[in-house]
Amino acid sequence: MTGTLITFEGPDGAGKTSVLRALLPQLQQLASLPIVLTREPGGNAISEAIRSLILDPANTAMDARTEALLYTAARRQHIMTKIRPALAAGQIVICDRFVDSSLAYQGAGRHIGVEAVAQMNQFATEGLTPDVTIYLDIPSELGLQRIATQRQQQNDRLDQEDLAFHQTVRQEYLRLAQADPNRIKVIDASQPLADVINASQAALKQALPTLF
Amino acid sequence: MTGTLITFEGPDGAGKTSVLRALLPQLQQLASLPIVLTREPGGNAISEAIRSLILDPANTAMDARTEALLYTAARRQHIMTKIRPALAAGQIVICDRFVDSSLAYQGAGRHIGVEAVAQMNQFATEGLTPDVTIYLDIPSELGLQRIATQRQQQNDRLDQEDLAFHQTVRQEYLRLAQADPNRIKVIDASQPLADVINASQAALKQALPTLF
Repeated sequence: MTGTLITFEGPDGAGKTSVLRALLPQLQQLASLPIVLTREPGGNAISEAIRSLILDPANTAMDARTEALLYTAARRQHIMTKIRPALAAGQIVICDRFVDSSLAYQGAGRHIGVEAVAQMNQFATEGLTPDVTIYLDIPSELGLQRIATQRQQQNDRLDQEDLAFHQTVRQEYLRLAQADPNRIKVIDASQPLADVINASQAALKQALPTLF
Repeated sequence: MTGTLITFEGPDGAGKTSVLRALLPQLQQLASLPIVLTREPGGNAISEAIRSLILDPANTAMDARTEALLYTAARRQHIMTKIRPALAAGQIVICDRFVDSSLAYQGAGRHIGVEAVAQMNQFATEGLTPDVTIYLDIPSELGLQRIATQRQQQNDRLDQEDLAFHQTVRQEYLRLAQADPNRIKVIDASQPLADVINASQAALKQALPTLF
């Protein structure tokens, strides 16, 4: 792989989407290479169908391990159809959520074991690891408050989870960041949006000085 | 688990369906306990939807590892909604294909590694292993010939695979049987159907004398 893989991570309500929307044109100006912004399911029919299954509010009987296997299947297909071809072409790929989300949400949040979920993802990624991960950190209460405000109309299955779940997810993210500070850059996402964007850009410039 | 789990395995064209159809009423007469006959996806909506995705001829772009993860997800949900509850109620569960199919088809047939597929299935089954497995063995040429005759109208994706694939699948089944002769009973399925049924029944009676 000659390209660069950057991932954005964070608990619900951390503002990943807003940050990425503002940051992308800035990064595109700085970079000499094309940037591909993507997120699971990544626009392929197979992963889209898998994701619909996971998020269907009718599927409340879905076992946590079934869910983890489905997320991993969707990720695998996304990697093969979009991420790996872009990296092979030397491009910069920015992915909104990746393996760390599964470790935090399924491994820790749903109590099925971070090690088991890591192993399954190793099977799916065959070792593909982000060069840099921007982790947008936010206290769980604030994150949930933001979701409640933003998504009054929506009510997908994941948003029905409680505060304890989100706290467990955040703790796992923080643990991962502490274990791999070279890859994972922690940004305080409780700041005003403009500051979060600036801090994210600064972290990327510092981590990848030849690119941005 | 107080019940008994019996699985039937074999390459395509070995005659599992015909053998099970004839054998089930005979076993029900012998057994003092209720018998549940099942097969993946096992009649739950989530596994059914997963299976449709896998077998959709439109999904030729499906990566082999995506497929393996999806099969495992469907299995997990089937175990949780049907197999485990029946075993917990003390019943006899006969399952048409189980983990050995994934080891033979995905692990060996699709060359993604028997060990990796075993590990993923360990995550899905949490150690649930059949008490007895009836493996219907058939030379690949004969199996494929039978499929061609039976399914002239159908053309699902798996049946487009070639002879080499089916031979690899069979070799892996035979290797598994050799490694675990206490669990896996090999039946020569090239015999006339009545003989295959009798041999299967005899193998089950011998392996589970208190049940049948």
